[in-house]
Amino acid sequence: MRRIVCLVVAVVALAGVVADTLPASRPADEAAAAIHGGKLPAGYRDWRLISVAHEEGNFNSFAAVLGNEVAIKAYREGKLPFPDGTIIASLHYRHAASEENNKVFGRAQSFVAGPATNIQFMVKDAKTYAATGGWGFYQFNEGKPVDATMLKSCYPCHALNKDRDLVFTRYAP
Amino acid sequence: MRRIVCLVVAVVALAGVVADTLPASRPADEAAAAIHGGKLPAGYRDWRLISVAHEEGNFNSFAAVLGNEVAIKAYREGKLPFPDGTIIASLHYRHAASEENNKVFGRAQSFVAGPATNIQFMVKDAKTYAATGGWGFYQFNEGKPVDATMLKSCYPCHALNKDRDLVFTRYAP
Repeated sequence: MRRIVCLVVAVVALAGVVADTLPASRPADEAAAAIHGGKLPAGYRDWRLISVAHEEGNFNSFAAVLGNEVAIKAYREGKLPFPDGTIIASLHYRHAASEENNKVFGRAQSFVAGPATNIQFMVKDAKTYAATGGWGFYQFNEGKPVDATMLKSCYPCHALNKDRDLVFTRYAP
Repeated sequence: MRRIVCLVVAVVALAGVVADTLPASRPADEAAAAIHGGKLPAGYRDWRLISVAHEEGNFNSFAAVLGNEVAIKAYREGKLPFPDGTIIASLHYRHAASEENNKVFGRAQSFVAGPATNIQFMVKDAKTYAATGGWGFYQFNEGKPVDATMLKSCYPCHALNKDRDLVFTRYAP
């Protein structure tokens, strides 16, 4: 279950010892610095779509996966490994049945984004996050960063996906 | 089933008799003109996220719902009815089990965007589309506009959702 919690997100504990602040000369760096500093990066809700995702079982989640400029460019060019500055955000919601839609359709078939549950970020910086495959993994619940111990299971699971630079989500056309 | 096909999309036949081209002074108008003219609007894949959606049953679809600038602004301000120039795009994919993800998780729980099936647009123009509640409904399969007769069932279904200006999708935070 703990490894499931960390679907998209790094051992913040390790990151913490590397640097208190990251360089902030480019927008991607500013966003990375914000995330590392425990704040949601400005404008992440305006980032472009990578794809959608749904996990059944205990997780019962519905996700919109968004990427910053660096991420979108790398995805579209099929660039692997992802370059430093890549940030991938998974906005998680409950996978909720829509009673109002089902009423219109006349059958139970419609699912929508329910209450927001968490937002997870993968931040690429080969040097800063060298101990976790070049990726920093972060999670925010209701806008607050979760404890680093919660995120220790992220890396081992993502590491299984080495062929795609530890990233599960593929780009949707 | 036919009404299910038209989840987000209007009686193009009716729209066709109104105007061959729409005014193209603003980006929203240019996009509307392109859609009306049978072309996917430039840059729609870069539009911002409204929400995600999943329909079970025969439809078996996974959608990312995106909006142009006018749409996003109206959603965020809670503006109803939506102003002229609003365009909502539903990018539909198959709701596909991800074998590669399930192998990592050790159980069957992961669903991702499968092959793209269609893209549907709702275009708001109270005058042009007066006969269908102010909305034009369009669908593209593999980049080509579908026949107007396919879209006749869209409006009657969307019309049931009058309280929210015929739009099913709510904005995800």
